[in-house]
Parts: sequence; C-alpha cells; structure tokens
Amino acid sequence: MAKEKKLVESITSREVDFAQWYTDVVREAKLCDYSGVKGCLNYLPNGYAIWEKIQADLDKRFKDTGVENVYLPVLIPEALLQKEADHIEGFAPEVAWVTQGGLEPLQEKFCIRPTSETLFCDVWSKTVQSYRDLPKVWNQWCSVLRWEKTTRPFLRSREFLWQEGHTIHATFEEAEQRTLTMRDVYRDFIQDDLAIPLVCGRKTESEKFAGAQDTYTVEALMHDGQALQSATSHFFGSSFPDAFDIKYSDKNNELHSVYETSWGLSTRIIGAIIMVHGDDSGLVLPPRIAPVQTKVIPIAQHKEGVLDKAGELLDTLRAAGYAAKIDDSDKAPGWKFSEQEIQGIPTRIEIGPKDIEQGQVVVVRRDTREKTVVAIGEITEKLGEILETMQKDMFERAKAFLDSHIDSAVTMEEMNSKFNESRGFIKAMWCGEEACEDEIKAQTGGASSRCIPDEEEHLSDVCICCGKPAKHMVYWGKAY
Amino acid sequence: MAKEKKLVESITSREVDFAQWYTDVVREAKLCDYSGVKGCLNYLPNGYAIWEKIQADLDKRFKDTGVENVYLPVLIPEALLQKEADHIEGFAPEVAWVTQGGLEPLQEKFCIRPTSETLFCDVWSKTVQSYRDLPKVWNQWCSVLRWEKTTRPFLRSREFLWQEGHTIHATFEEAEQRTLTMRDVYRDFIQDDLAIPLVCGRKTESEKFAGAQDTYTVEALMHDGQALQSATSHFFGSSFPDAFDIKYSDKNNELHSVYETSWGLSTRIIGAIIMVHGDDSGLVLPPRIAPVQTKVIPIAQHKEGVLDKAGELLDTLRAAGYAAKIDDSDKAPGWKFSEQEIQGIPTRIEIGPKDIEQGQVVVVRRDTREKTVVAIGEITEKLGEILETMQKDMFERAKAFLDSHIDSAVTMEEMNSKFNESRGFIKAMWCGEEACEDEIKAQTGGASSRCIPDEEEHLSDVCICCGKPAKHMVYWGKAY
Repeated sequence: MAKEKKLVESITSREVDFAQWYTDVVREAKLCDYSGVKGCLNYLPNGYAIWEKIQADLDKRFKDTGVENVYLPVLIPEALLQKEADHIEGFAPEVAWVTQGGLEPLQEKFCIRPTSETLFCDVWSKTVQSYRDLPKVWNQWCSVLRWEKTTRPFLRSREFLWQEGHTIHATFEEAEQRTLTMRDVYRDFIQDDLAIPLVCGRKTESEKFAGAQDTYTVEALMHDGQALQSATSHFFGSSFPDAFDIKYSDKNNELHSVYETSWGLSTRIIGAIIMVHGDDSGLVLPPRIAPVQTKVIPIAQHKEGVLDKAGELLDTLRAAGYAAKIDDSDKAPGWKFSEQEIQGIPTRIEIGPKDIEQGQVVVVRRDTREKTVVAIGEITEKLGEILETMQKDMFERAKAFLDSHIDSAVTMEEMNSKFNESRGFIKAMWCGEEACEDEIKAQTGGASSRCIPDEEEHLSDVCICCGKPAKHMVYWGKAY
Repeated sequence: MAKEKKLVESITSREVDFAQWYTDVVREAKLCDYSGVKGCLNYLPNGYAIWEKIQADLDKRFKDTGVENVYLPVLIPEALLQKEADHIEGFAPEVAWVTQGGLEPLQEKFCIRPTSETLFCDVWSKTVQSYRDLPKVWNQWCSVLRWEKTTRPFLRSREFLWQEGHTIHATFEEAEQRTLTMRDVYRDFIQDDLAIPLVCGRKTESEKFAGAQDTYTVEALMHDGQALQSATSHFFGSSFPDAFDIKYSDKNNELHSVYETSWGLSTRIIGAIIMVHGDDSGLVLPPRIAPVQTKVIPIAQHKEGVLDKAGELLDTLRAAGYAAKIDDSDKAPGWKFSEQEIQGIPTRIEIGPKDIEQGQVVVVRRDTREKTVVAIGEITEKLGEILETMQKDMFERAKAFLDSHIDSAVTMEEMNSKFNESRGFIKAMWCGEEACEDEIKAQTGGASSRCIPDEEEHLSDVCICCGKPAKHMVYWGKAY
C-alpha cells in the first residue's frame, strides 16, 4: 500500500492549490505534456483517447443534423485573411507566418490557420451560384494555431485540436436557426455525455467572436468557481460572405446575399472534464466519454486460476460491448487501484480467489468508491446499470454545485462581496454599455460578462454599475 | 435522357486520355479541388467521406494490433529536424518554414511537419527510461506538408492527409516484426476493403525512406499500367533513436538502444481507388469503403404513393444498417442515375409504380450495371449479397488485370520492348548496384525498381543491365 500512497501524494490537494492540482492530474494521468515546441502540447494516448471519444460522439450528433465533413488547407494566404476587416484585426496579432517554402523565400506569406472562415468563404465564392447549391453545412476536425504568450495544458496552447463548422444559407432565418441548433447540439452533448451542467446564452458585444453578429455560448463552472466557455456558435449575417462576393440566384434569377454561421468546440473541453469532475485522487471520467469503462484487477493473481478467471471475465465484458482492460502486471493491487483512479477509469472490477469461490466479483465506482458485489453471471447487466447510475450521479453532483454557485446582486457592493467570497456566477442587471463591463471587471478584480441567458430575469430596473436603465440581465464570472 | 448524356460527356474516355479522365472524374464526382493556396487541396464532402471510411476501417485494424493514437505538434524546430543527418538531407529542400509568430520575427524557425519521426523521438527521449516503458506503439492521423513543385489531386499535393505510425522496441527482432505486421495490415486492408490487388516487397537502397534501414512497400497497378506505391512500412534500426539518445535500462539496470519503425498511408490511396476501379462513367467505389452503399431512386415520383414507398424503403435499409440515401429531387431519373454513377455509389435501387404494384424493386450494380429484380420484403438480405458479390468481383477483375500486366525480361532489349509495349510490372534480375537502376530507368524511359518481392524467382543468373551476378529479382515499373 506504500506505493499507492506515493502515487496519490504526487497530486496536490485541490483545496490547497487548484492550479497545481490541475497540472498534477494532467501529468499523473498522462493526458498530455509540453513538447519541445514552446507552447505546443503532445496529446498522449490517455488524453487523445478522450478526444477520440468526443469526436465520435459529437460527430454523430452533427451528422444527424445534416453536417458534412471536409478538410481545407492548413495555410491561408495573407490577402485572404485580410478580406474581412474585423476578422483580420482580431487575429493578425496571434498568427504564425510561413515565409519560406523549400529553399526559397515566398512572394506572398501564408499564415497557419487560426480559424478558417476565410477559406470556407473562398471555396464557396467559386462554387455557389444557384439556390440549388444551398445550404452548405460543412465541418472540419483539425488543429489551429494561435501564437499565445501564456499557455496551460488543454486550456490555452498555441496549437489546439478542435472542430470548426461553417455553413451558408439562403435566408437570415435559416442561418439563425442553424446557429441555435448547433448551440443546442453542444449543450446536449456536454450535459448528456460529459455530465457537465451549463449556463447558456449569448455574448455581449465586447465578448463576441471577431466579425460575428451574434455569438452564442455554453458556459460551465469549474470546481474552483471559475467559468469556462465550453463551445460557441456564431451568426455572421452576410458580412463575411459579402466580403467574399458569395451570391446566389433564386428561381427568378435574382441575385441575393447568403447568411453564414460558424461553431466550434476544442480540446479545452477536456480541461472542463478534469476541473468539474476530478478529485484529489486524480481524474474522474463520465462513463459515456471514458475510453476505458472498466479495468479488471486480479487479486492474489499468483494463486491458481485467478488470472484465468480474470481473463474470462475480460472476454465476457468485451463480448458484451464494454471498453474493458485488464491489469495483469506484476504490480501490487494497491498500485493498480491507484493507477485506475488517477486515470479516471469509471469502474474497476476486483476478482480474487474468494470471489471466484463464491462466484462473484466486486465492482468499485471511481467517483464514490462505492463497492457492489455482483454475481459473476450478472456482471454484463449490472455493470451497465452501475455506469448509467454513475453518469447520472456525476451530472447531479455537478448541477448541485453549479446551482449553489449562482447568486445575484443588485448593487456593486453586493456584486463585489459575493464575487470575491464565493466565486461562481453572479446574475446582475446591465445597461448594455461596454464601459460598464470594463468598470465591473476592474472593481471586482476579474468578473467578465459570461452571457446574456436565453431567459432573462428582472432583478431590478437599473444597471448595477452606472444606475442607468437596465437592458439585460447578465451572468458574470471569472473566466479561464 | 439528354441531361444524362451531358453529364457523362463531361468525362473524357480513359482510353483516349487517362490523365484527363482522372482529372475529370475527380472534378465531376466532387471529390476535391484546388484551393487558393497553390498546390493545396480542398477535400470536399464526397472525397473526405471516403477518407473517413478509410480512417475508421484502418484505425480498427491498427488498434487490433495494439496501436494507440496520439497527436504531436504541427511545428518542428529546425534544430530537431537536423538531429538525424540522412533525414534532414531528404526533407530540407521541401519543407515550409515559419519565421514569424504574431507580430514578431522568431529567434528559431520552425518547419511545418513533413513527417514526424523527430517529434516522436523527442517525446520518447524524455519519457522512456525502463524496459517497462517499452514498447511504444503510437500513431497519429494528421496532415503533412511538402513543398512540391508539381501537383495532382490526391497523388501529389503540398499538404496531404495521412496517418503516421511510430514505434520503438526493446529488441531488433520485435521492431522488425512490427514493421512487417504493419505492412501486412496495409496489404490486408487494401486488398480486402479497397479491392486492390498488390505486389509486396521491400525497396532497394535508392528507393528507401530517408534514414530507414529497410522500407517495405505495397505496390498497386493503375489501369494505365503505372504503379502506385500505396503504403510503406520502415524499419529504422537504432540510428534515429540513438541520435536522440533514447536508451532503456533492462532488469539488470544495463542501458540499451531501442529499435524504431514508422509506417504510413495517405490520401494518395484515394487516387488508387479511382485509377484501379473507375470507368468512363466515373468513379466506382468498392462497397466496403463506399460512404454511401446504395441510392434509392424513385421512378415517376409524381405518381401517387411512389415517394411514400421510396421513403419506407429508405427507412428499412437504414434500419438494417445500410448507408443509404434517396434522391427525391425534381431532376429526371436519367440525371439521377448519372449522378449516382459518376459518384461511384455501388448500387442504386429503382422503385416505380410498376415495381410497387408487383411488390418489387430493381437493384442496379454500379460496376457491371447488372440489374436484379428483388422482392421488396427480401431487399435487406439481397442487397447485402449483391454488395458482397460486387466487392469480390471488383477484386477479381483488378487481380486479373494485374496478373495480365506482370511480365518478365532476361535482357535489356526484352525489358525495353515489353515495358514500352504493355506497361505494368516487369520482373528482372538485378546486381544490387544503384548505377544499374539508373541505367535501366534511363534506357526504358522511366522504369524504376518498385520492390524486391517477398518471394523472389530465379529468372537468370545475371543482372539484365550489367551482366554481373544477380543478387535479387526486382519488380520494375513506371511509378506515379
């Protein structure tokens, strides 16, 4: 058991130092590490496998709404990036430039894509002519690069993995509907599969995506009370497509503008999984997104028949469709338990000589450590039930945490004290002016507007900052 | 029917101009097009969907052999690329360099990965210490960039999609076995799923990958008689890992070198699918790799009940697990047939008023245009049989073509005339000297050594070029 202790001791308690706890979990669970390229990550097998699960689940949800996948180039010519003014202003300071190809300097420089609105619009400007060509509902899974100064694993790195969906439509309404549909896809995916409850709404002017008319967001609350923007869906109107001269002719041969959307979710979400569900023993993965759902751990495996029975159990589980592994290495069981816990594998199944004698196994849940003795003949059925219950419980716990960390304020004094005391989201009225957003951030020491929720409440008549008539109720929080 | 004709007329006959036929098929089937970034492709929905099928099928085969997926950075620091001498010599002339990050020039430049041996070795040099850390059997799906001068869709472009597997092992034998295992995975995947027969073997010294000790290859023959290197698997020995100082200590705490492999398959293989199976009507996709296996086409769909029945049929097919679509647009049936044929969808199912009356549908195979009348209640069973038969037939036809395009030569005269007459592969003896490879290429006008097959035949005692004692029998061919 000494070894087990050492493993867990390598993780700082999350109440002592949350940032250090996060770094420790990422390292000990072997999710990713920093590469020799400053600010870029190596996504290691345990971390990348989570991303693969996210990709598979989310991609299916996308395709159910009619999304088609494509892949456009990693490079964007400088002239193309400059076509939409707000966009280049937003991205120019943080792109990497390719200036040499082979042994020769290039006549025009290219940036590595920080996002691909310009490339998608370029393709459509050459191929979309008629109403019959609409809508285009495309998505790509790729990496993007933004030359960030400070970086943290999954949360902020120069290169990160994401999907970026881009669509164009014949009408304003259809595009707006698509923006909301995709926001809902993200919401359902994150709540149902990742067991992370959300606050949903749209961004204020100053927090919108560069060039967007509206940005919808889903915001999650981490265990330290800070907010994490978990996915966004943007409505562009016609500004982008007009800049690229994308027009279509209707049935009467009249030319019209098209309406655009884009929407994305990145490997940042893995940071959210860690910070919502993790504990002092390491990662806790929601069963629906766990690359490995259960680990079989033989007890006293040197005794006759134990490894055979454990192997049979593994085969049974796999045949029933579970993502199961076995740890039949020569490490001590305590060490194996710790490894399974650190890596957040939702359940382990212990099987030793006594269990075999009694025709049973012991299933241990990662989140609660609750043990269930299960007759070996019923394991494939019971394990599913345990995983399903665990998934629900994890969501309920996170939801209770979120609910208990939403407060409201009607004065700046209240805002200040509540924000600094409890963290979490504070609901408060706002006049709609950016100056007040800046002032609130300055006074509270970091509360930014997270979103204007779908359903606003009327907390008072006036902006808590300037006292002028309130336009919106806003969720405020400190953001990652 | 006029419209149908026009569609097909947009494809040049493959006997008239094979290169133009290829370009026409890629364009008309909407697989990919050139982007605004010179030499880079846009992978459009129809083309990318094929790549997604390839990824899913091949990735499963990889994982069955114990492969784990990762993702390493898109950028490689110059100093890292230079660590292995042969490697940098091979790649330096064709990489793109990033020299500016954000608004500032970089102190060290980075190249966009042309391949990632150096990055994988860099990770392992920091993390591998003990025999317990071995083997590492990693793979990544990503894009790479090589600054090519001439480009062709799928066959050669600056950026292309691929997977690159990288592994290290404690022993020479284990690494060599992995090299061969992966070569076999490619062979089985390409022959079984893509219906493309292969010639397998290893590369001569001059055709090996930069820095590799042995390169194993699978070579396919296109309909124009040219060869296409379809996947490669490299054995590096210890040269790469030694250059990166990757060592492990064994159970006795003694330090040892590790042995490395790498292996890859790219979107080039889509070019092979087109050029092996396509015909004058367009693409023909092997059923096992087709993103859409069947298209339901209603006949006289304005008549009462036709669209309803067609919709029911679609639901039945999907419920049975088929990737099925329907074309219920207002185009003429002939036009719909042509589109399905151009896109290579393996079957179409025609359903009209008469069929409905008689409780039947008509299944038409894309490759032979053979029609099968099927009772509507039996369609889910029969369609599977038809697709399975088509898959087998496509392989058999391609195999017959390959076999009839393998010849042998024992003199240079014979080599010259046979190579220029028939194309295809010519088997001939070789002394092992690069000078003779160059001479054979020059004299024949382009025959390069494709591989030394697993099982060599003894055609004569001497090299056909220099007359000195022969070391190997080589497959020669003109390569894409």
